[in-house]
Amino acid sequence: MTEAAEAADGPLLIFTPSGRRGHFPAGTVVLDAARSLGVDIDSVCGGRGICGRCQVRPMTGSFAKHGIESSAAHLAPPGAVEADYELTRAPLIEGCRLSCTTTLLGDIVVDVPPESQVHRQVVRKSIARRAFTVDPVVRLHYVEVVPPELASPTGDLGRLFEALEREWSLTSLAADLHVITELQPALARGGYKVTVAVHAARQVIAVWPGFQDRALGVAIDVGSTTIAAHLADLERGEVLASAGVMNPQIRFGEDLMSRVSFAMLHDGGAAEMTAIVRAALADLVADLAAQAGADPDHILELTVVGNPIMHHLLLGIDPVPLGSAPFALATDRAVHARATELGLDAINPGARLYVLPCIAGHVGADTAGVMLAETPYRSKKMTLIVDVGTNAEIVLGDARRLLAASSPTGPAFEGAQISSGQRAAPGAIERVRIDRETLEPRFKVIGCDLWSDEPGFAEATAESGVTGICGSGIVEIIAELYLAGILTADGILDGRLAARAPRVIADGRTFSYLLREGTPRILVTQNDVRAIQLAKAALYAGVRLLMDHLGIESVEQVRLTGAFGSQIDPFHAMVLGLVPDCALERVEAAGNAAGTGALIALLSANARREIETQVRRVEKIETAVEPRFQEHFVAAMAIPHKTAPMPNLARVVELPLPTPPDPEATSGRSGRRRRSRTTDDERKMAREEFR
Amino acid sequence: MTEAAEAADGPLLIFTPSGRRGHFPAGTVVLDAARSLGVDIDSVCGGRGICGRCQVRPMTGSFAKHGIESSAAHLAPPGAVEADYELTRAPLIEGCRLSCTTTLLGDIVVDVPPESQVHRQVVRKSIARRAFTVDPVVRLHYVEVVPPELASPTGDLGRLFEALEREWSLTSLAADLHVITELQPALARGGYKVTVAVHAARQVIAVWPGFQDRALGVAIDVGSTTIAAHLADLERGEVLASAGVMNPQIRFGEDLMSRVSFAMLHDGGAAEMTAIVRAALADLVADLAAQAGADPDHILELTVVGNPIMHHLLLGIDPVPLGSAPFALATDRAVHARATELGLDAINPGARLYVLPCIAGHVGADTAGVMLAETPYRSKKMTLIVDVGTNAEIVLGDARRLLAASSPTGPAFEGAQISSGQRAAPGAIERVRIDRETLEPRFKVIGCDLWSDEPGFAEATAESGVTGICGSGIVEIIAELYLAGILTADGILDGRLAARAPRVIADGRTFSYLLREGTPRILVTQNDVRAIQLAKAALYAGVRLLMDHLGIESVEQVRLTGAFGSQIDPFHAMVLGLVPDCALERVEAAGNAAGTGALIALLSANARREIETQVRRVEKIETAVEPRFQEHFVAAMAIPHKTAPMPNLARVVELPLPTPPDPEATSGRSGRRRRSRTTDDERKMAREEFR
Repeated sequence: MTEAAEAADGPLLIFTPSGRRGHFPAGTVVLDAARSLGVDIDSVCGGRGICGRCQVRPMTGSFAKHGIESSAAHLAPPGAVEADYELTRAPLIEGCRLSCTTTLLGDIVVDVPPESQVHRQVVRKSIARRAFTVDPVVRLHYVEVVPPELASPTGDLGRLFEALEREWSLTSLAADLHVITELQPALARGGYKVTVAVHAARQVIAVWPGFQDRALGVAIDVGSTTIAAHLADLERGEVLASAGVMNPQIRFGEDLMSRVSFAMLHDGGAAEMTAIVRAALADLVADLAAQAGADPDHILELTVVGNPIMHHLLLGIDPVPLGSAPFALATDRAVHARATELGLDAINPGARLYVLPCIAGHVGADTAGVMLAETPYRSKKMTLIVDVGTNAEIVLGDARRLLAASSPTGPAFEGAQISSGQRAAPGAIERVRIDRETLEPRFKVIGCDLWSDEPGFAEATAESGVTGICGSGIVEIIAELYLAGILTADGILDGRLAARAPRVIADGRTFSYLLREGTPRILVTQNDVRAIQLAKAALYAGVRLLMDHLGIESVEQVRLTGAFGSQIDPFHAMVLGLVPDCALERVEAAGNAAGTGALIALLSANARREIETQVRRVEKIETAVEPRFQEHFVAAMAIPHKTAPMPNLARVVELPLPTPPDPEATSGRSGRRRRSRTTDDERKMAREEFR
Repeated sequence: MTEAAEAADGPLLIFTPSGRRGHFPAGTVVLDAARSLGVDIDSVCGGRGICGRCQVRPMTGSFAKHGIESSAAHLAPPGAVEADYELTRAPLIEGCRLSCTTTLLGDIVVDVPPESQVHRQVVRKSIARRAFTVDPVVRLHYVEVVPPELASPTGDLGRLFEALEREWSLTSLAADLHVITELQPALARGGYKVTVAVHAARQVIAVWPGFQDRALGVAIDVGSTTIAAHLADLERGEVLASAGVMNPQIRFGEDLMSRVSFAMLHDGGAAEMTAIVRAALADLVADLAAQAGADPDHILELTVVGNPIMHHLLLGIDPVPLGSAPFALATDRAVHARATELGLDAINPGARLYVLPCIAGHVGADTAGVMLAETPYRSKKMTLIVDVGTNAEIVLGDARRLLAASSPTGPAFEGAQISSGQRAAPGAIERVRIDRETLEPRFKVIGCDLWSDEPGFAEATAESGVTGICGSGIVEIIAELYLAGILTADGILDGRLAARAPRVIADGRTFSYLLREGTPRILVTQNDVRAIQLAKAALYAGVRLLMDHLGIESVEQVRLTGAFGSQIDPFHAMVLGLVPDCALERVEAAGNAAGTGALIALLSANARREIETQVRRVEKIETAVEPRFQEHFVAAMAIPHKTAPMPNLARVVELPLPTPPDPEATSGRSGRRRRSRTTDDERKMAREEFR
């Protein structure tokens, strides 16, 4: 790739949107002029008219601002190279030219469309909070290597490096051993034309014969229940496929602590869990490639997020120290490794692994992913981000100061410890409304769009049945019981209603609410209420503790993330007192922000630097050593909590009953709806991501 | 590790041999003062009185040159730390103190003995040509890591890095994945005291609980016949064990080209040869560790040399391109990899591999090793270095200019193509003398110190028998046949002598020389002479071609290296015309210089930089494209060659016969003798290194 020399008396060439400009001699190649002006134009083939990434759009018309009359005719007419490109590869973008083969004739304004920019902005629909610039760590370069000659017996690798320096200004390169072993066959097959993948502008990690322009990566969120992943084009930033699988470690324990126990009690238990999660990852990556019709050999990068225990188990680190104080992480740095070190050997042997940094013993790389997706560290608004699982991971702050903590919510929100609780799966009740007058319920189950009182519900759920209540269903029903007056602020199911409401039934010395007759019979018991009270009090106490540290009484926005968090209805979450006071419309589900963070890290070297810096800046609060945590915890047992004024919630509760605003239509829940409309896979993933 | 502040009115402290000096407050720790003055004192434990590497010797007496009266009493008397060191680890060196625990009381001269210097000079007896400074790429550091606290939930790796920065000024560190997985168990077992190995001051590649001060490495010379290796202490520079094994690839062909053919003709043939040589390497490394009583987990570095085909096969590179023009190497750069990539997984999982650079298609990393050991690029004398095998690798030049080439000598020097030829092994004839009068021979065989005409020879060789002639024996017998007048300068066995000499016998239309009656009957045939003529002519023509390039008619010194080269008797080599004109006393055997080079590269990062630079500087001459090569070749068929005046050789030939100077006592051969006296292993290796 060459640069052009400017010439004061030559035609004026102006690039948009950058506005860079210069006078060049007639006959100058547009791409060369762009290079010399530092204009961001992509190219893999090094200006040979092969890759088609350097397309630009000549503009015709009067550009008064620039003082020139631009015309597409001020570029030399298309020649054989462009004709050949269109014939053999793809049509050019409407109105565009290949800048590497197009020469300058007169004054002209040339636009560089986003498709042709190396550092293009990506605004993905499912990435709600931020746009970011694709800036992959791995880049492809097509080069023509000088063939060996008897008279100059140099090595092929050396000549490859020389070509990479000559054409791409890459210096101080090294190469993986497998690249050295594959190089000569590739050169032979490609007629000394090869494409290489270069990691961090330093290490040649892959080589292919001839021209090849697909560099792929996989962003993986290893949850305790589900492993979710996206396959993306590293240079174009597109997501090509998404998929999720169950984490097979579930057979060693549903929740994190039971897996740590398994590791503690069984020799080789941790290694066994490591082996099966790695195998699942390998299968998932193979699935993604198959789904996208992609060659696994083009997969060059993996990024991973996960909570500390998933993180440690995946990397082969014993998770036992995370099970007891002081909950020491083996590392809170980003981890760099080769994919083969995790046994991922069906992809390119040079593929690299990047694991986002963990933050603290209970605040993992998944939270780092959430931070990267949500960027609270850039926000002017005081932002609360909550990822609820067995532990709630809490991030609170803004651009000035950011705190993180973990609260031991226990598994109640995941359906464990609840009499009719279950994992989110078809048949699980996920939405509930209780009529304020009749105290009769209606509900929805996963896998069916109808409410239980709508015609056709029985038929539509015939296959799945109605099997239990999942996490978001539990939150709703407790909130609804409170709103309907069945549950007192102290969390007592009010037996006095048993007389007029057949749904309130005596159950030993306490009362239960009968959500559904039938098989199974689904009850909400006094114990269930207690379990949720404990869980929500722990969550709220953690949040409150961070608010104390910041000296604030309210937050300006709340983001609920994670498989459970993104399914919770913000209205019911506020009724229950899960989150502190905040305008309801500013409480939103953020989807699987951790997975989004992994994807951003996959596509951007800058994002990696950003999150590594931010993670070190975060103030880590250990709830277990803070005496006030217990105080907050006790105070937060009530429904809603008693520690803060609740003007917004009060307003919400006063909304005309019995027809409360349908959160599906207005609030955070819509986040998921919007997502679920994007692709079926994303909806499926969001469902399965219940960790 | 800390530094001390100087104080103008404090006692004067002078270090020898560096001469560095400064005034420090009374009570200053001597090691701290040394650090602040930049004095080279070793330490692994960071000044904790554990490793004993920082010992210094206080001097007593008048140091007029420095103007002080020094006294050992000007250091505080030994305390508990030194007593404890002597009790638990080892006695201090005579008259020495641990500088890390010794404080300054008054003016003193303190000597730093070589044992306490990080960059100590090594002059090994078997490394004839150079001294070098130990400067290992891997260093050990003992550190005390701050234990984790609940209130500050950082990762153990981060706290390890902090300790390494605090105590050893190491920054920007990264760690191997296996180090991250091993770190917490090591910290737990070592009570947060661990020893780490740091590669190139950047990458933590190993971790052990507590104090550990053994960093080992293996230098390997992969020959086509023998793999020879040394196990060395990376920091102290000592060779702890040496061993050699047959290269198991021999079963796919004795010489290089038959192995290339095997790879060419059999699918997976190259991979098969790669697998078995790697397995042999693994066994050899395990043997070395066992022999030295060393823990294989302490092996952290490997260096490898080998000819291009051995180099490629070991690294898993198809050697077929090396079998035909243009003989392109996959790489002529040094290769860095992890030992596990070669399947060496019984040593430390962080162990690194460094393969010296190849120079050209037929001039391999073994020649780079030879260059590193012999340093012709530093010499003021015009130096010829020859490594004879199936190809002769030739390096010629001096500090100003250095040339390298390879000559296709064929396998005759290795005993192939010779009627009674065999590999160097017990029973092979390696020394021959022919009586100038009687034309009767006497000889010596490998494994026996007696000549065949001495009493007891038959008994001493009863086990091995007398089985054939090895390479050095062939060179001697052809030279002796010439000196005895049996062989003409044109290479004809003179049948006219058959009448008076029963040893000269008709053999079809030509004559043979009967070296030994018996079983087997050992003859030197006319064809044998032709084969050696062709081989020596090729070698000489290659040398001559390089001399042409330099415009010289003679060389100032000759070094014969490699398994064959170091066994050749320089006198007979000159008679035969193997090497160009040079004073006989300046023709020397250099032993296994390639292996020595591998050892130097193992022990010195500087040496690696040096050889990488020098290899790029070498002018590579391809004999096959030089028309003059054929001319020289034809001219060199005669014995001795006809192309150069031979004053020295003439002088040698005129030495009083029939008792020529015994080369065993005077010349290059003595190089091997000296070596063979050092250790039995080295002798064994030298024998086995016949490649």
